[in-house]
Amino acid sequence: MSTEYNFLKACRLEPVDQVPVWLMRQAGRYLPQYREVRSKGKGTFLDLCKDPARAAEVTIQPIDILNVDAAIMFSDILTAVEPMGMQLDFHPAPEFANPVRTRADVEALKVPEDMAQALPFLPDIIGRLRKAFEGRVPLIGFGGAPFTLACYMVEGKGSKDFASLKQIMYGDTELYHALMEKITELDSRYLQMQIEAGAQAIQIFDTWGGLVAPHDFERYVLPYAQKLIASLKGRGVPILYFVKNSGTMLELVKEAGSDVIGLDWHVNLGKARDLLGDDVAVQGNLDPTVLYAPQPYIENEVQRILDENAGRPGFIFNLGHGILPTVPPENAIFMVDAVHRLSRA
Amino acid sequence: MSTEYNFLKACRLEPVDQVPVWLMRQAGRYLPQYREVRSKGKGTFLDLCKDPARAAEVTIQPIDILNVDAAIMFSDILTAVEPMGMQLDFHPAPEFANPVRTRADVEALKVPEDMAQALPFLPDIIGRLRKAFEGRVPLIGFGGAPFTLACYMVEGKGSKDFASLKQIMYGDTELYHALMEKITELDSRYLQMQIEAGAQAIQIFDTWGGLVAPHDFERYVLPYAQKLIASLKGRGVPILYFVKNSGTMLELVKEAGSDVIGLDWHVNLGKARDLLGDDVAVQGNLDPTVLYAPQPYIENEVQRILDENAGRPGFIFNLGHGILPTVPPENAIFMVDAVHRLSRA
Repeated sequence: MSTEYNFLKACRLEPVDQVPVWLMRQAGRYLPQYREVRSKGKGTFLDLCKDPARAAEVTIQPIDILNVDAAIMFSDILTAVEPMGMQLDFHPAPEFANPVRTRADVEALKVPEDMAQALPFLPDIIGRLRKAFEGRVPLIGFGGAPFTLACYMVEGKGSKDFASLKQIMYGDTELYHALMEKITELDSRYLQMQIEAGAQAIQIFDTWGGLVAPHDFERYVLPYAQKLIASLKGRGVPILYFVKNSGTMLELVKEAGSDVIGLDWHVNLGKARDLLGDDVAVQGNLDPTVLYAPQPYIENEVQRILDENAGRPGFIFNLGHGILPTVPPENAIFMVDAVHRLSRA
Repeated sequence: MSTEYNFLKACRLEPVDQVPVWLMRQAGRYLPQYREVRSKGKGTFLDLCKDPARAAEVTIQPIDILNVDAAIMFSDILTAVEPMGMQLDFHPAPEFANPVRTRADVEALKVPEDMAQALPFLPDIIGRLRKAFEGRVPLIGFGGAPFTLACYMVEGKGSKDFASLKQIMYGDTELYHALMEKITELDSRYLQMQIEAGAQAIQIFDTWGGLVAPHDFERYVLPYAQKLIASLKGRGVPILYFVKNSGTMLELVKEAGSDVIGLDWHVNLGKARDLLGDDVAVQGNLDPTVLYAPQPYIENEVQRILDENAGRPGFIFNLGHGILPTVPPENAIFMVDAVHRLSRA
C-alpha cells in the first residue's frame, strides 16, 4: 500500500500523477488548532514533544487541514541527545544546562544501546500515527544531522556563529572528531529506532551545516552525515538530507548519499537539478515569506517552481525552510492545492 | 600619491607588491582601545557615530594596531536615512520608532538635496581622517544598499525574515518600487557627499540582499543597486559591492556594476573568480570564526585563500563578514601580517 504514496514514489524517482507536497514545520504555531493544543496542556514545548497523545494530535492537524502528502512526526531534534546526559530545556528557545566543552565532557557523554527504552514516547507517537494514517499518508521521522546537534551541544543554545564549536573544531581537531563519532553513533541509533517503530522516511536536518565554508563542510560536516546516512540505508526507507544555506556546495551535499536533497530558496531549482543529476530526488524550495503574498502571487511562484522542475521525476514540493509562525493558514492551504492542481498531468 | 596604495591598485586590477588587506568592522568591540573610547564618552553608539573627534579616533585605531591597508570611516549605514525623517535609536540594536508601512509613510519620506548639511558630522569625520592618513592609507566611505536600508526602514528593526518588507514587495509592488526609488536617490546623494568630502573608495553593504531568491534579487534588489552604483561611477573612486549570502547568484551581483565584489566564506574564492571573470576585482573571504583558531591554523587558511586566488590581480583580502566582538586582537594582527608576508612576490 505504502508504495502507492506519491511522496514515497517521488523519493524513489518514480513517476507520480501529481507532485507531492508537505511543509517543514507544518505542525506549528501558524495553525490556531496547534496553538489551542499547546495552550490547553500544561508545561513547555518539550512536554508537548513527550506527550504521545498531544504530539500525535498536532501531527495529524495539518494532514486534515492542508491536505499535504506526508506527515512528519511532531518532535524536536534535540530530544535525541537527552539520553547522552544533556540537560535540555526550552525558555522558549532550546538550551542545555551542561554544554560540552572539554575532553571530560565528551567522555562523559553516554550512547545508550536501546533508544526505544531511553525515549519511550517516540515509538509510542510513531505507533499511534501509523495507525491514524494507515492508507492515507506516509509518516516521516526525523533528526538533526551530527554537526547541527554538535552546534547546540557545544554552544549550549542557538547562536549566529556557534563559535564555541568552531574553537574546538579548529583548535582541538582530535576532540572534535571524538565528539562527532559519539554523536553520529547516537544519531544512527535514534533514527534506526524510528524506522523500527514504523517511520516510512527519515528527514535529516543539517540546519547549521551551511555555516561553514565548503572545504570545512567537506572536512568537518560531510564525513559524519555520510556515516549516518550509510547506517540507515538498505531498509527500504528513503533518507532526505537538508542542509540550510548549502547552495554553493550542493555537489558535496550529494556526496552524503541521501535519496532526496532538500533545497532552500537561495538556489534556482532547475539549475540545482541540472547540477545534481537525475539519480537523486530533490525537495523544495519556495521562499517561506511568499506565503504572506496575495494568492495569485503565490500561484505564480508555485508555477515557476514547477516550471523549473520541468516534469522531472523525483520532485517533492516544500518550502525552503520552516513555515513562519504568522503566515495565514488559508495561504498554506491555497499553496498545497495549487501544487496539486498545477502539476496534474 | 593615492594611486600608489595597494588597496586602490587592487580595486583597479593593477599589480601589487603584496596583497592588500583590511577587515570589515575593524574599528569594533574586539579592540580594548575601542571599548575604552566607547565607555569614556557618554551616550549611545549613535552618539559615537556623530562625534567627529571620537569617530575619527576609533577609525584610526585599527590602522595603528593591525597595519591594515585601508581605513573605513566609523559610522552606521542607518545614519543615511535619518534625514528622510526616520527616527533612529540603538537599544543597543538599531530601531526605528516610525517604520515605513503605508503609502502615506513613503510619501512623507524626505530626500534632502544637501546631505552634507543634513549630516554635517560625516564630512567633518572624513576631513579629519584624510588629514590623519595622508600618504599612509586610503579612506573608504560606505553605506547600505537600497534593499538593505529598506529592510530596516520597513521592519523598523533587525529580523530573520524582514517579512514586513516582503509583504509590501509581493503585495503592493508599486508601493515597493516607489519606496525603493526614494531610498536609492537618498543613498546616491549620501554616498556622493562622502566622495565630495574625500572618501577614496565606497563600500556598499547589501547585508540582506541575499535573503531573497535569485529571481527576486533580479527583480527587486539588483535594479536599485545598479542605479546607485551607476550614479557613483566616473569619479575616480572605486565602488565595492558586498551582498552577504549571494554565493548562489554571483553573476547577478556582478551585473550591479561595481569595481570590486565582496565574497563571503560560503564560496570557494577560486571558483568565484573563474565565474566572475578577470574584469572585476574581488574582496574576501576568510570565515570570521577562523580568527578563534590557533595561529598556525590561521596561517594555513590565509595560504589556502591566497592559493585560490593564484596571484590574479584585483584581489583584496578581507573576512567574509565583520570581525566578531570576542576575537583576540593578536589573532587579527597575526592574520594581517600573514597576508602580507605570504603574498609578497
